[in-house]
Amino acid sequence: MPDPLAYLSRTARTLRESAIRKASDLQSAVPDLISLAGGFPDPSLFPWEELNEISQSILTGTDPTVLQYGLTRGYRPLIGAITEILASRDIRATPEEVIVTTGSQQALDLCARVFTDPGDTVLVELPAYTGAITAFGNQQARLVGVRQDDAGIDLVDLDRVLSRERAAGRRVALVYVVPNFQNPTGLLMSRERRASLLAWAGQQNVLVVEDDPYGGLYFDDVARAEETRPIKSDDAEGRVVYLSTFSKTAAPGFRVAWIAAPAPIVDRMEIAKQSADLCTGSLDQRLVYEIYRRGTLDRRLPLLRESYRKKRIAMEQALRRELNGLVSWSTPKGGFFLWASFHEGVNTDVLLKGAIARGVLYVPGSAFFVDAHSGADARLSFSTPSPERIDAGIARLASAVREEIAVTPSEVPQPSEVPPASPPRVGPAPARSRG
Amino acid sequence: MPDPLAYLSRTARTLRESAIRKASDLQSAVPDLISLAGGFPDPSLFPWEELNEISQSILTGTDPTVLQYGLTRGYRPLIGAITEILASRDIRATPEEVIVTTGSQQALDLCARVFTDPGDTVLVELPAYTGAITAFGNQQARLVGVRQDDAGIDLVDLDRVLSRERAAGRRVALVYVVPNFQNPTGLLMSRERRASLLAWAGQQNVLVVEDDPYGGLYFDDVARAEETRPIKSDDAEGRVVYLSTFSKTAAPGFRVAWIAAPAPIVDRMEIAKQSADLCTGSLDQRLVYEIYRRGTLDRRLPLLRESYRKKRIAMEQALRRELNGLVSWSTPKGGFFLWASFHEGVNTDVLLKGAIARGVLYVPGSAFFVDAHSGADARLSFSTPSPERIDAGIARLASAVREEIAVTPSEVPQPSEVPPASPPRVGPAPARSRG
Repeated sequence: MPDPLAYLSRTARTLRESAIRKASDLQSAVPDLISLAGGFPDPSLFPWEELNEISQSILTGTDPTVLQYGLTRGYRPLIGAITEILASRDIRATPEEVIVTTGSQQALDLCARVFTDPGDTVLVELPAYTGAITAFGNQQARLVGVRQDDAGIDLVDLDRVLSRERAAGRRVALVYVVPNFQNPTGLLMSRERRASLLAWAGQQNVLVVEDDPYGGLYFDDVARAEETRPIKSDDAEGRVVYLSTFSKTAAPGFRVAWIAAPAPIVDRMEIAKQSADLCTGSLDQRLVYEIYRRGTLDRRLPLLRESYRKKRIAMEQALRRELNGLVSWSTPKGGFFLWASFHEGVNTDVLLKGAIARGVLYVPGSAFFVDAHSGADARLSFSTPSPERIDAGIARLASAVREEIAVTPSEVPQPSEVPPASPPRVGPAPARSRG
Repeated sequence: MPDPLAYLSRTARTLRESAIRKASDLQSAVPDLISLAGGFPDPSLFPWEELNEISQSILTGTDPTVLQYGLTRGYRPLIGAITEILASRDIRATPEEVIVTTGSQQALDLCARVFTDPGDTVLVELPAYTGAITAFGNQQARLVGVRQDDAGIDLVDLDRVLSRERAAGRRVALVYVVPNFQNPTGLLMSRERRASLLAWAGQQNVLVVEDDPYGGLYFDDVARAEETRPIKSDDAEGRVVYLSTFSKTAAPGFRVAWIAAPAPIVDRMEIAKQSADLCTGSLDQRLVYEIYRRGTLDRRLPLLRESYRKKRIAMEQALRRELNGLVSWSTPKGGFFLWASFHEGVNTDVLLKGAIARGVLYVPGSAFFVDAHSGADARLSFSTPSPERIDAGIARLASAVREEIAVTPSEVPQPSEVPPASPPRVGPAPARSRG
């Protein structure tokens, strides 16, 4: 019998697994687990009735292309709809500057294929979205982290890292950022920082990949729509590649997202997509197009914002009640995630086992770092569970944290000893001793 | 303004476009074009009513996961269904040996990612499916062609090519074959040839990727089900990676296909798929699962076979009537394609312009070759148009051929002068002089 692994390429041996997907797989294996892990939208907010109505009209219609192979570039009316959505975000794009992708993950994969060669440097935030880390990493790019603070990516560090990489003779392919309610930190990049980043990219001739899945989901008690204005909106030079998706506003099961970029780049992406999956699902694209065309998406956005806002509040209240002084965070101004930084030497990689034993799942911070990391933080997603389940989940987490602290009280570093390379710890909850 | 192309990776500059997809794009731009180009199934054969009924029951049901992110490996009940389908083809596979892919194109892409490094050799039939050529080519594999005859891939040539590649110090990653009604030739690999190929792969320790989209669509006037038995069915050693799809039997708009391979290989493919698109569409997988579960797929197979058989007959009759003596072919025993070899020096790359002007589209043979090729052949697909449209399409094609011959009568080589590296010319229609 041959060893099947002997057939693997060198590349295949180095493939990196997404910690989030691993956690999600686990989720379906443990009964009554409260998952604060996956960034899954709340299925009770999906437009079920409208979709049922639309699917009937599509499947009883006379258009044979609904279930047929489609154009690689995407369903043309949907591309038209996307240019309208982009215009509503102050991004001018012609249909030639748009390509539909099979979810944003494919958009990241196409960016990796089209912009990076093995060994090229890709600059990412510390911490960064794991899906981007795996997409670029699996294309054999060299991932290099750049610090961020409460206002977004740190331009001084960015410039320092760029200089260092270039001085070492490396090609810096792009910088990848998630300015709106970043995954995993939930941070909103300030408008000043966005402008500075774009100016810096122009001066240094660096391509910016701007990933914007959450922009529409700002929380109006702490943020305004203007604050989510994409960097791409001010990109007069065609230096920003903009990614967005219907996964968070319609439903992720459709796998419909898009890229907006200069036409010659989109041309190459189309060729790369041909060999990746020929085309995105036809029925999925119709369904998404129809819920857009009927105004369902726009009409429902306020509902989504309010619902996720309430969940964020439920999580913050539970954290204050259950873990006061043991954790700090920055209030998420939108999106799905709260970045929790634990005190008292809690290591979230170690904590995970106890958390799962108590029936709660999160993603340890280490999953989001491309450099060595102390592991005192975690991404807590408030998007999927109900406020009640969030509350119960945080109580379970607190129980795990307290046991963890009780087990290893003498080994813990004090908060001031946490290494400076650590993630932003900028929360409104002051670090207090346990009490 | 920066030149957008300056941001492209070296890899992106070499990406190959699929000639078929290009032709398909053209199709939607020319009015009343009869396309014999794309290998699109006949949409009138899609199970519209059943799907409408199923989608209603799914979208009004109580399962919130229907529109949610799914497991990377695929929807578990569907994986179970796939193991049953495999068992019906005499392939034993556990759920751990199966992964759902976003169409067979993604299956090919995952094979490219997991089995090949840049510069590795991939052996393909001459001619071969363009989707495989682009998937492996875009991963920077070196594609090397192996002759085939009426019974399939030529084992003497295969062994010669393998020795040559290995002697040159190259790693031969795999041999890719489409034994059932090959795309583009329509050829059915003989059972003897399948057995010999598997034995050869064992002796030489070569991985076989067997792509089987059309196996269920044999034509019972010229073939029997037993003749379509997959190579994988006799693979006791785990040396065959088997690809199949629901695109031809349900509908391609769903983008649901699968790979069966040894579990350690499927594990790696899952990781590669994570970074490619996270998961295949959830609703699509449910719809496909339900039409399988209800027996719709199995029940409809005889109808599909009969319908495509009639179309093949319509094409053969039209070819005999319109182009008698100017073209030869092997009767397709199943599937979607007829491989037409033209006489009288017709070059199908040149002919294409005149064909389009007359309102008919095909794919020139050159699109399917990884080596230099004389270009006397074309892939004619009979799957999508009605028998009447096929008839009209061949008449248009004949008109273009006759004009082409009239324009360049003195430059044409006689049939006997066609180079021996040319594709199989094994048809039942004898090469006769025009008249």
